[in-house]
Amino acid sequence: MKEIRRKGICYGGDYNPEQWPQEVWADDIRLMKMAGVNFVSVAIFSWALLQPSEDEFEFSWLDKIMDMMGEAGIGVDLATPTAAQPAWLSRTYPEILPVSKEGMRYSYGSRQCYCPNSTDWKRAASRIARKVVERYKDHPALVMWHTNNEYTCHVQECYCDNCAAAFRLWLEKRYGSVEGVNRVWGTKFWSQYYYDWMDILPPRKTTAQPNPAHVLDYRRFMNDSVLDLYLMEKKIIEDISPQVEVMTNFMMTWKDLDLFQWAEHVDVVTWNSYPDPDPSYDPSWTAIDHDIMRSLKGGKPFLLMEQAPSQVNWRRVNRAKAPGMMKLYSYQALAHGADGLMFFQWRQSRRGSEKFHSACVTHTGDEHSRVFREVVDLGSDLKMLEDLKDASYPSETAIVLDYENWWALEYENNQSSEVDYLENLRYFYKHFYERHIPVDFVHPLRSDLSRYKMIVVPFLYMLSREAGNRFRDYVKAGGRLVVGCGSGIVDEEEAVFEEGYPGALSGTLGLSVEEFDPLYPGQRVCLSFEGKEGKPDGEGDLWQDRIHTREAETVAWFSEGMMKGAPALTCNKLGKGEAWYMGIRPDKETLARILEGICRDSGIEALMDAPPSLEITCRENEKGRWYFLMNFSEENVCLSLKDKNYINPLTGRPAGAQIGLAPLEGAILLDVQ
Amino acid sequence: MKEIRRKGICYGGDYNPEQWPQEVWADDIRLMKMAGVNFVSVAIFSWALLQPSEDEFEFSWLDKIMDMMGEAGIGVDLATPTAAQPAWLSRTYPEILPVSKEGMRYSYGSRQCYCPNSTDWKRAASRIARKVVERYKDHPALVMWHTNNEYTCHVQECYCDNCAAAFRLWLEKRYGSVEGVNRVWGTKFWSQYYYDWMDILPPRKTTAQPNPAHVLDYRRFMNDSVLDLYLMEKKIIEDISPQVEVMTNFMMTWKDLDLFQWAEHVDVVTWNSYPDPDPSYDPSWTAIDHDIMRSLKGGKPFLLMEQAPSQVNWRRVNRAKAPGMMKLYSYQALAHGADGLMFFQWRQSRRGSEKFHSACVTHTGDEHSRVFREVVDLGSDLKMLEDLKDASYPSETAIVLDYENWWALEYENNQSSEVDYLENLRYFYKHFYERHIPVDFVHPLRSDLSRYKMIVVPFLYMLSREAGNRFRDYVKAGGRLVVGCGSGIVDEEEAVFEEGYPGALSGTLGLSVEEFDPLYPGQRVCLSFEGKEGKPDGEGDLWQDRIHTREAETVAWFSEGMMKGAPALTCNKLGKGEAWYMGIRPDKETLARILEGICRDSGIEALMDAPPSLEITCRENEKGRWYFLMNFSEENVCLSLKDKNYINPLTGRPAGAQIGLAPLEGAILLDVQ
Amino acid sequence: MKEIRRKGICYGGDYNPEQWPQEVWADDIRLMKMAGVNFVSVAIFSWALLQPSEDEFEFSWLDKIMDMMGEAGIGVDLATPTAAQPAWLSRTYPEILPVSKEGMRYSYGSRQCYCPNSTDWKRAASRIARKVVERYKDHPALVMWHTNNEYTCHVQECYCDNCAAAFRLWLEKRYGSVEGVNRVWGTKFWSQYYYDWMDILPPRKTTAQPNPAHVLDYRRFMNDSVLDLYLMEKKIIEDISPQVEVMTNFMMTWKDLDLFQWAEHVDVVTWNSYPDPDPSYDPSWTAIDHDIMRSLKGGKPFLLMEQAPSQVNWRRVNRAKAPGMMKLYSYQALAHGADGLMFFQWRQSRRGSEKFHSACVTHTGDEHSRVFREVVDLGSDLKMLEDLKDASYPSETAIVLDYENWWALEYENNQSSEVDYLENLRYFYKHFYERHIPVDFVHPLRSDLSRYKMIVVPFLYMLSREAGNRFRDYVKAGGRLVVGCGSGIVDEEEAVFEEGYPGALSGTLGLSVEEFDPLYPGQRVCLSFEGKEGKPDGEGDLWQDRIHTREAETVAWFSEGMMKGAPALTCNKLGKGEAWYMGIRPDKETLARILEGICRDSGIEALMDAPPSLEITCRENEKGRWYFLMNFSEENVCLSLKDKNYINPLTGRPAGAQIGLAPLEGAILLDVQ
Repeated sequence: MKEIRRKGICYGGDYNPEQWPQEVWADDIRLMKMAGVNFVSVAIFSWALLQPSEDEFEFSWLDKIMDMMGEAGIGVDLATPTAAQPAWLSRTYPEILPVSKEGMRYSYGSRQCYCPNSTDWKRAASRIARKVVERYKDHPALVMWHTNNEYTCHVQECYCDNCAAAFRLWLEKRYGSVEGVNRVWGTKFWSQYYYDWMDILPPRKTTAQPNPAHVLDYRRFMNDSVLDLYLMEKKIIEDISPQVEVMTNFMMTWKDLDLFQWAEHVDVVTWNSYPDPDPSYDPSWTAIDHDIMRSLKGGKPFLLMEQAPSQVNWRRVNRAKAPGMMKLYSYQALAHGADGLMFFQWRQSRRGSEKFHSACVTHTGDEHSRVFREVVDLGSDLKMLEDLKDASYPSETAIVLDYENWWALEYENNQSSEVDYLENLRYFYKHFYERHIPVDFVHPLRSDLSRYKMIVVPFLYMLSREAGNRFRDYVKAGGRLVVGCGSGIVDEEEAVFEEGYPGALSGTLGLSVEEFDPLYPGQRVCLSFEGKEGKPDGEGDLWQDRIHTREAETVAWFSEGMMKGAPALTCNKLGKGEAWYMGIRPDKETLARILEGICRDSGIEALMDAPPSLEITCRENEKGRWYFLMNFSEENVCLSLKDKNYINPLTGRPAGAQIGLAPLEGAILLDVQ
Repeated sequence: MKEIRRKGICYGGDYNPEQWPQEVWADDIRLMKMAGVNFVSVAIFSWALLQPSEDEFEFSWLDKIMDMMGEAGIGVDLATPTAAQPAWLSRTYPEILPVSKEGMRYSYGSRQCYCPNSTDWKRAASRIARKVVERYKDHPALVMWHTNNEYTCHVQECYCDNCAAAFRLWLEKRYGSVEGVNRVWGTKFWSQYYYDWMDILPPRKTTAQPNPAHVLDYRRFMNDSVLDLYLMEKKIIEDISPQVEVMTNFMMTWKDLDLFQWAEHVDVVTWNSYPDPDPSYDPSWTAIDHDIMRSLKGGKPFLLMEQAPSQVNWRRVNRAKAPGMMKLYSYQALAHGADGLMFFQWRQSRRGSEKFHSACVTHTGDEHSRVFREVVDLGSDLKMLEDLKDASYPSETAIVLDYENWWALEYENNQSSEVDYLENLRYFYKHFYERHIPVDFVHPLRSDLSRYKMIVVPFLYMLSREAGNRFRDYVKAGGRLVVGCGSGIVDEEEAVFEEGYPGALSGTLGLSVEEFDPLYPGQRVCLSFEGKEGKPDGEGDLWQDRIHTREAETVAWFSEGMMKGAPALTCNKLGKGEAWYMGIRPDKETLARILEGICRDSGIEALMDAPPSLEITCRENEKGRWYFLMNFSEENVCLSLKDKNYINPLTGRPAGAQIGLAPLEGAILLDVQ
Repeated sequence: MKEIRRKGICYGGDYNPEQWPQEVWADDIRLMKMAGVNFVSVAIFSWALLQPSEDEFEFSWLDKIMDMMGEAGIGVDLATPTAAQPAWLSRTYPEILPVSKEGMRYSYGSRQCYCPNSTDWKRAASRIARKVVERYKDHPALVMWHTNNEYTCHVQECYCDNCAAAFRLWLEKRYGSVEGVNRVWGTKFWSQYYYDWMDILPPRKTTAQPNPAHVLDYRRFMNDSVLDLYLMEKKIIEDISPQVEVMTNFMMTWKDLDLFQWAEHVDVVTWNSYPDPDPSYDPSWTAIDHDIMRSLKGGKPFLLMEQAPSQVNWRRVNRAKAPGMMKLYSYQALAHGADGLMFFQWRQSRRGSEKFHSACVTHTGDEHSRVFREVVDLGSDLKMLEDLKDASYPSETAIVLDYENWWALEYENNQSSEVDYLENLRYFYKHFYERHIPVDFVHPLRSDLSRYKMIVVPFLYMLSREAGNRFRDYVKAGGRLVVGCGSGIVDEEEAVFEEGYPGALSGTLGLSVEEFDPLYPGQRVCLSFEGKEGKPDGEGDLWQDRIHTREAETVAWFSEGMMKGAPALTCNKLGKGEAWYMGIRPDKETLARILEGICRDSGIEALMDAPPSLEITCRENEKGRWYFLMNFSEENVCLSLKDKNYINPLTGRPAGAQIGLAPLEGAILLDVQ
């Protein structure tokens, strides 16, 4: 068991002092203390300064910073500085640079510019990581190891010859032989049959559609290749500094890494959140990200590793966060399970790519800016919220998230480019979000399903027989499984189930699907809950399935179009539970009709009776139940607190009988009963 | 004369048994018999399986399939499997892989990934083609030779050094000398003058507009290069198996091949039709494709070589064909001259790029699917329509289609990117389609023009003096020529006619065009048939010409804009005929006013008096006149059959006095008088 | 002092006789005389014909043309033919060909296909330029030297290894050392630190955002590299033919060259104007181009070196210029300071890329075309306007234009991609255009600011301390400076001013800006001139600044949004002048309110009292004041000329008491008092 050196709610940010003369450093510490900062991430992009050449290392400035932090009582999240290698390294070993699908080798001069299968890069990265870890493993300021930064943010795939060689080894490990590859990829068609390992290449730019299983396996291989980079650094750290927590910072709901797999290898989940201040941005999109991050390690609190105090610098229009918005998004992170709030970055750069990314200390350079004052204000709130630490999140409902399915489903030549896996997750999530029902995310194989009364399964196009069995067992044991259209089409080899759709879900759902028909954007199809010829009283879009029920009962029928009269919504009672299938994506009202019924039957209840525009969550620990109320809307919201006697933890005083929240205002209520 | 081994109306599809274990093959034959299948295409993508390495060949599985088909009485359209070479071949001879305009060499792993001027590829393709032809030339199941597949579907141009060398030879053959190239391309301008063959390159990506004659000649060269590939295979077949028909399957109205030229080298025209089930798709776009295919060999029936039983897999949203739609499109093919209906493919793949392309036997794997039942139903219709075979199509009207003009007109830097040659063909065609007037397509040089009472010439930007002479002779002999705006600008060298516009058409039309003005999208200009100052009673769009009449008479004048008062529509009486010129593209009503008048004068009549939403065609042979009525609209249509006594050939019974057609319903009426 | 050999108002065009057989040349001269042509540009693209191979030159045809022009009394603007090198040269020295950011080497076959740092190209270009200049330096037809053509029209940047090497030298000259580069580019962040010159590359395609100072310096380097090409040719000419004017033709308001810098090296500013005949094109966009060109050399008349008689060939839809439009745009050029009007090209090509670019002699080949008749008509006007020559343009108002700021501001990752520097210039310019107030453009460092009563500064994101000082001195001396939002953010190193925004403008404006907030497209924010809580009576868009006034007085306040209650418009009285700051981009009415007040206070007046739809300018010389009235609108405009007694210089007669102008009609009025 590792030692958790983080204290209270972590608060601070990325600190890149190498950008500033040393006289600024003392002032930084003065300002950090003013803001209540207790934790900073250091050296994330410092490789070039720490290693001027192949055999030369220079740690004096970092020594000094570590000592200053130690003296100031500020913990350090110290990075292996491998997120961007020095220019001299790229020049010396040009095969480090990644290659695009079209064969273009990228140039350096930005960041994250390396091939994940470059042995030159791995050797150099191991060396600098080892140097850093050895030097600072016993430093009193050290709190956590931060490896690299936002893996795959800029390079999701490399197609170079080194990757080709590594891909062959990966395939050999997975399939044993070239013949195994041929079988899974279906190469007997289109003359793609391989007779020799050397004939197999990455799915580089070719003349027509590539082989989809080839593409999927390359995605899996890239995920694994990058994970190996993390594991390489993690091993160095665990060898040398085994007691300190290790992590790498994830990005939001990011398609390119299987975070359920990755999370098994980090000591704490951390992630970077950059909601768009644009009013068209839906705050539930960040809520879902938080919920996923918390779910990755089965509900364990996470750290918000980066957020912007105000604007970022990489959108088309980089708006400032309006007064209050940063605090509200900070509350939201705590509300969904964060035990720490960090900013990128502490002091705003004067030069370089990120000079217009906001920071705690702005270009005014002093403590008087609006942004800095908001940082100080939040810091003083956090001091009152130390008891929140380690509080859990009580969900009885879960949504399935499967990264490999995401990859397979959004293969460029799939059946409908209107099907967007993330958009679907968000669509189903929003139902619960607006009803104030807590939701977790689960992986079909890696998560404990038995904890949930209901599990929703959006567009699980690909699943294994093992996953099918787990869902069946879940239902038999009393669970409610709600499966969305387009599920159960291919197995984990990306081969259509031999028994037809929905393959490994067929027995559980008690039906078969004969054919499917993706719908055009905006196209809606009516349903009826009254019978085959019933009056339309529901609608759906996106996709329709031709269902043949077996054991399942039909709950609603298509009432127009080519599926007219066929089942649209079915329910199969199995063991102690129920397995529902939606042969179309129900519109908001129809979905509510379906899910409200299932919730009622399952005993799933809202946290509070409140308007949908208010976001409400709850965390609980031995101090009580911490309710978070957040008003992301543009209207004032007023809520009666009725019979409960809440305490406001920021003041320690009772909360009163009702509460009013202005736009961008949040509140925390502690129920100690 | 070759032996025609096809029996009755061909019915079947692409059969790729190598995807399936042998136990499935027997079931395939059972299902084929159930569906009335008499013809299958085999081995189109089988190269990698037939030739495991440079000197190793493996035909046993194909022997078995051929024997099984022979025993089942199902004819085989046997492919030279050259549409996709094996991976080992691409790896051994990397110059086989094509190169983009930007210099990127494509990778393999898909299909049709070869340079048309690769000698390595040609040697290998000849060898496998010869092996196949030698082995199966006397097989009793053999009905037809299918070479390659959909030439230029994925690779329209290659820009590699082998192509550069071949291009120089092509230019030398065409122009004799570098000086000849200089003259035609006008290289004295922009310092492009060439002093040596080696200076001439393909029109690779350059800094500003390329030379348009250079680009046009490269397009011609690429068409010829690919045609040479076909001719190479054809020669092998004719040497070894001279009595069997040879073809390659064309795609729809495909810009990149001059199909009039190609058609001279196939024994039967075959093509692949993939109308979009989207309601916004206009079925006349498929009708025009059929009419073009039939016209390529002067009216000879063709084979529909591929169609989808339901959805395809390469659109943004791949909708299923609704019940009835496949049959109606099948009728449409017969209606326009098909003597065969084939599907891609017989049994739906479980793996690979095309696994979601529909097939006759769907992923349910049995005979109970809706799609399979529709295939069976169509097959039983076809048994009743055997007498339709070889029936001709009685057109008195033709539209000019000239592929080289298409290439020249749509050169990227031409005068208006709003001018879309295919869209224009479709625009003029639609007039006749809605009036139930049969239309052929003619090439200015390769077709017999004298068969037609009227010929419409949309946007013939480029034409040779020889073509001009043929049009003049056509008019003198009594034809009605209706020429659209923008015609007669350049000669076959892509040089502006020295005498000005419309060049080689000027004498026939009796006018000159001083200047032209392309119009903006949506911009319309009014015309008047009443005189220079007449009230506007017509409209047009796209393009306007400043016409000076000589012998021609003005029929309508521009009544606004910069051409106000100038002729907009003219008619020149010449010999026994008339040559019309439209100095703008008339809108639908104005075009109808013009063409209805000319039809009336020429004695061109509709096949039936029926609403425009109904598609009607007629084929005729010694059995009678076969009328096809097709309702692609979303409304029921009812038609009185009046005094005619039609027979329904599907039942052999009289058709009755009126006929009602639901949406997606078609009917066939046989007039035996 | 060079000899000005141009006579009267220059009139003619690009003459490319090498496209035509010699028998056409005599007819060209006949037609030129008919049109009043006195000046032609020759040999611009003739390199390949003048130099058939490395050591072979061929001048006989050019000798003949020069002699014919001399005999006809037509002056020649003789080109060094370096705008497009011969194919043999590109083939012999392939490193001449430029390389894209992605590493693709362009192919030849078009024009302007060379790397600006190719020593092979420079050697060859110097040689042919020297040959031409030596041969024709004393030719009696020679009037002016034309170097190259439209530098950077097609190639704005090259990223090849030769450029990389030259870039390092350029950086060494600018910054002295690698350490200097590191300091300015801020490479201590993101591990970009360089230890060796050889590590520094052009900003080639990389994985994430490049370093913005790196990109900016590369743009500066490319501008300087191309300027070196011009200076190389200029030096050859001045060595051999020192008395003849030298120039190169600029394009419109072209981002990629710092024309204020370039203009110091040309004897006369010349440029090519191609307004779009599309009615959506705003003629003030051409007016601004003219005003910039005139301003480049402090008000000296320029030559319109190219315009199209009718259509061009490179837009999506290439409309003809309607009758009258060419003349009106010609008047506009004279109106803003042109002393010459030239066409591209004289006779329309029959072949090649530009064959559909209009010409004086059209494809009809004779003098009867509408276009040619308009050319003749304009020529006869110009004979009556000879006295206009050298007239100046009386502006009291100026707008700042700074190319380096443009480059820095529109760096791909800047704070708002909605900020378009040119669009902003046009926005502020339009205010004066519609009010008939003459405007010059000034460079912060290169222009004399003291001549102006008011200077408007749109979006001066980047400025040097020296520029800041010049603006301060300007205000102190009595000028009115009106600075737009988003100004004063970075210094010339692209580093944020250490003292915060608006950096070097802060003292002059008497305020600081704490933070900024770019606004979304279409988003507007209300202002009030009545006070912090005042009723909204103004609006703005694009960007808002949080202003803290010091010495400045607040004139208007934000009345909504996140800046509510903060200053939106301020005025700082300093010395004898005033410095205004607009913390948002005022909408049209609000801007008018602000600028009208300042004009009134400064004594800046409109030229005439006339509707905004009429464009009005004035030039003046010893012959009087020449007023130009141009009606680009679609309505007739009628204007009373009141008490003034104007003369119509085209007739020499009094102009009358009022004047009516039809659409596309212009008039010239001479006030001789």
